[in-house]
Amino acid sequence: MELDGEERAVVRPLLTDLYQATMALGYWRAGRACEAAEFELFFRHCPFGGSFALAAGLRDCLCFLRAFRLRDADVQFLASVLPPDTDPAFFEHLRTLDCSGVTVRALPEGSLAFPGVPLLQVSGPLLLVQLLETPLLCLVSYASLVATNAARLRLIAGPDKRLLEMGLRRAQGPDGGFTASIYSYLGGFNSSSNTLAGQLRGVPVAGTLAHSFMLAPASSEGPTVDLAASVNLWLKRVCDYLGLEVQEPHPGERAAFVAYALAFPRAFQGLLDSYSVRRSGLPNFLAVALALGELGYRAVGVRLDSGDLLQQAQEIRGIFRTVGAEFQVPWLESVSIAVSNNIDEKELARLAQKGSEVNIIGIGTSVVTCPKQPSMGCVYKLVSVGGQPRMKLTEDREKQTLPGSKAAFRLLGPDGFFLMDLLQLAEEPPPKAGQELKVWPRGAQGPCTVKPAQVEPLLQLCLQQGQLCETLPSLDESRTFAQQSLSRLNPAHKQLQSPPVYPVALSEKLRALVDSLGAGGPL
Amino acid sequence: MELDGEERAVVRPLLTDLYQATMALGYWRAGRACEAAEFELFFRHCPFGGSFALAAGLRDCLCFLRAFRLRDADVQFLASVLPPDTDPAFFEHLRTLDCSGVTVRALPEGSLAFPGVPLLQVSGPLLLVQLLETPLLCLVSYASLVATNAARLRLIAGPDKRLLEMGLRRAQGPDGGFTASIYSYLGGFNSSSNTLAGQLRGVPVAGTLAHSFMLAPASSEGPTVDLAASVNLWLKRVCDYLGLEVQEPHPGERAAFVAYALAFPRAFQGLLDSYSVRRSGLPNFLAVALALGELGYRAVGVRLDSGDLLQQAQEIRGIFRTVGAEFQVPWLESVSIAVSNNIDEKELARLAQKGSEVNIIGIGTSVVTCPKQPSMGCVYKLVSVGGQPRMKLTEDREKQTLPGSKAAFRLLGPDGFFLMDLLQLAEEPPPKAGQELKVWPRGAQGPCTVKPAQVEPLLQLCLQQGQLCETLPSLDESRTFAQQSLSRLNPAHKQLQSPPVYPVALSEKLRALVDSLGAGGPL
Repeated sequence: MELDGEERAVVRPLLTDLYQATMALGYWRAGRACEAAEFELFFRHCPFGGSFALAAGLRDCLCFLRAFRLRDADVQFLASVLPPDTDPAFFEHLRTLDCSGVTVRALPEGSLAFPGVPLLQVSGPLLLVQLLETPLLCLVSYASLVATNAARLRLIAGPDKRLLEMGLRRAQGPDGGFTASIYSYLGGFNSSSNTLAGQLRGVPVAGTLAHSFMLAPASSEGPTVDLAASVNLWLKRVCDYLGLEVQEPHPGERAAFVAYALAFPRAFQGLLDSYSVRRSGLPNFLAVALALGELGYRAVGVRLDSGDLLQQAQEIRGIFRTVGAEFQVPWLESVSIAVSNNIDEKELARLAQKGSEVNIIGIGTSVVTCPKQPSMGCVYKLVSVGGQPRMKLTEDREKQTLPGSKAAFRLLGPDGFFLMDLLQLAEEPPPKAGQELKVWPRGAQGPCTVKPAQVEPLLQLCLQQGQLCETLPSLDESRTFAQQSLSRLNPAHKQLQSPPVYPVALSEKLRALVDSLGAGGPL
Repeated sequence: MELDGEERAVVRPLLTDLYQATMALGYWRAGRACEAAEFELFFRHCPFGGSFALAAGLRDCLCFLRAFRLRDADVQFLASVLPPDTDPAFFEHLRTLDCSGVTVRALPEGSLAFPGVPLLQVSGPLLLVQLLETPLLCLVSYASLVATNAARLRLIAGPDKRLLEMGLRRAQGPDGGFTASIYSYLGGFNSSSNTLAGQLRGVPVAGTLAHSFMLAPASSEGPTVDLAASVNLWLKRVCDYLGLEVQEPHPGERAAFVAYALAFPRAFQGLLDSYSVRRSGLPNFLAVALALGELGYRAVGVRLDSGDLLQQAQEIRGIFRTVGAEFQVPWLESVSIAVSNNIDEKELARLAQKGSEVNIIGIGTSVVTCPKQPSMGCVYKLVSVGGQPRMKLTEDREKQTLPGSKAAFRLLGPDGFFLMDLLQLAEEPPPKAGQELKVWPRGAQGPCTVKPAQVEPLLQLCLQQGQLCETLPSLDESRTFAQQSLSRLNPAHKQLQSPPVYPVALSEKLRALVDSLGAGGPL
């Protein structure tokens, strides 16, 4: 397995909160650095008001864990910010740390995830697994947020529209863009404009051209003359047919189209809205496309970046049809129409409606920065120390945690849809298909019974005592897995606004443990 | 000057949109790769509905430009995604690219920035400066967004509250966290929890302890016994005084406090809300703090992470006062109270109100992810090619650009406050203090006259033909500069909601150039 960390140089042990180091010192002074501890990483609420999330970021976590080592400079920096009388033996201990004692179970990349079900279970020496909290949260939260956001956008767009992520320039920092490009693809996008995500992670890259190309038009000298002359002849025919003066289309824009067509005769695309779409961009595009067509090349598409995108697409498709018929160029009517310009969930729904002539939708800010909810609120909570379950009890019941080392299962109904997720103690036997179970759904007043038609274990052993357990799936495999998982989610839970809550339940034994700890019994 | 790029390994030439490479090929085929071009990076609207932004990210841009080189693997990747018949000489050209022909003028880091005034002016060979668009936007936009967000939060908090950035776990990717830690400090925060930002950029780091520490309490054996015994005596006295049963405070929490106090006797802090603040956290803290006090150590503070923070702080301060008086421990009343828990602008205003007993405010999600507006919408537009001004003319007048190579000045009134920013052509003589000027404010119907008491040039030459021009200011210097600049902004423009627009005006000559191009004259 390739786990190249080069692109993530910022992901290193000191990318953590100072209080993790403070607590590490506290544990060390108390002689507890090496006590066996287990933490769970989970979220309490699904993002964006939906009923699901996609788990993502696991590969990045494993990459980070495998490389985990405090360098001399790191330890020296910590020594400079911790109390000056700190025992040097503590820093010697830090120098020896690596993840050879760490075991991780996790939801596979692209899994559906629900509140309270661990995305990661991390066990190992208390001091070390405490230090891992912030970087693991940082790696999982945003990756999962973006993947979930992309999956929602895919649900809105339906399976056929091509979705292009193009948000790098709007991202929250360079890595915000890089991460977004990878995990929006995992969540269901078709491609990204981000070249680095293509190079380093194999995301399909795509893109057209920018307005600046239109503003820096080629001269009409030299090798461009032949095509340019043919374009001018076609321009007259097109303008006549559309009822425009031949002076109306902007000559600089047309020169830029010609330059582009000469550079990419097999991939000519026109960005139509540098000036006026109807009076300049469209006739210029048609003149160049028709001239190219005479030479045996088919233009691949147009792009719109302003105005009413749906309505313009309808008009442009209509003109492609009639112009194609008029000049007997049948391929013209199927030239693809790409749109962009601050597209959010609402506008996407409009662009994806029945009868829409839009083919490709470029989304930037709203997939990358997740403006509807720009952070995912994952938490990383201690569930056992020294083999004893731990539980956080506060007056804010929502912040209570579920104690103990746990297993998680997804129960399916006879229709093949997911029924509920079940959390139980690790030592309990797994539930069996066809067997009636008494379970305690979270948030419900009492228990209920359920008879699953199928049972799937959720958490996979990924890292055992520092060793990777199996080959990680490729990004494409995880992307396919995410779409397959979504296809088994009941349509009601795929509603994006106010969906019914997907049930997560506790086994009787886990419920009893919660009661025994919550009732004030000794911890 | 140290420009260590190690931490930014993801910031490299291929962190760009594919269409930049596509356009580069277009320019190259048209023989225009080396034409002199100039781009401006600016924004059209101030973020968060305010009237200003802080310019940030310049250092990162210069670091990127100085290191700009396409590696063999980069060029090979581009060859794999561009048309297969692309002339190999294009790729040879890419291999030779560096920024030795690039010149950058910029607003210094921490400057106040207003719509349409360039943050960066980038000139150099057309093909190359086109390729720089996406990475420069990515580096400037988020840095400036976070710095502006932090400056707003500082304005709300006033000068005395200590603001701690603690958003790493909620950030949009690891670099989103790293960038946020640096630029929230620049914008006016006091410190960050992010250790790496301390190590690599000198941001003061700070932090306390997490709930998990409370859930993994130390045993009461061994060296802890002496302090623990004294704590138990104090607990009884404190509980008697507060009217609590001595069994009420959670023993596990108390054991964790003892462990923490033993580890950090000079820096003991208590996180009070793992269980109940009033019935557990506070009496446990008091018992440990008073026991430590007998040994000559003063506790430094408490932290609250849930509930009504303002009200609890008042109550706790009251109890510190009366308990301090009762037990003749006068320092207790000035122990610092730190709060956190999803604090946004509105809650911060509440916590900073007159009479508030809160001293330290930890802000995570809302400073780091900027939920009010998670992206800054900077653009990078061509303003001249081959020495000729260029202007984007669209039906959407707001998207029109200002043509030509420009200079920018800030005009000040006799009261020392900023009056307006003035854009003019680079070749015009600078405006003079005391001289009446006729200018054209953007958005106004006509010209106006202004007589500045002082004139300050805005754009500094940072990179000349690839060479750094002077030592970059340190992060602390930029932070001071930002606060000084804000102190010269008229209080009206510091309103955070619906402030009056800060005027940006064009000189007569620039206005005339716009008119000549906008009127359809030849480009």
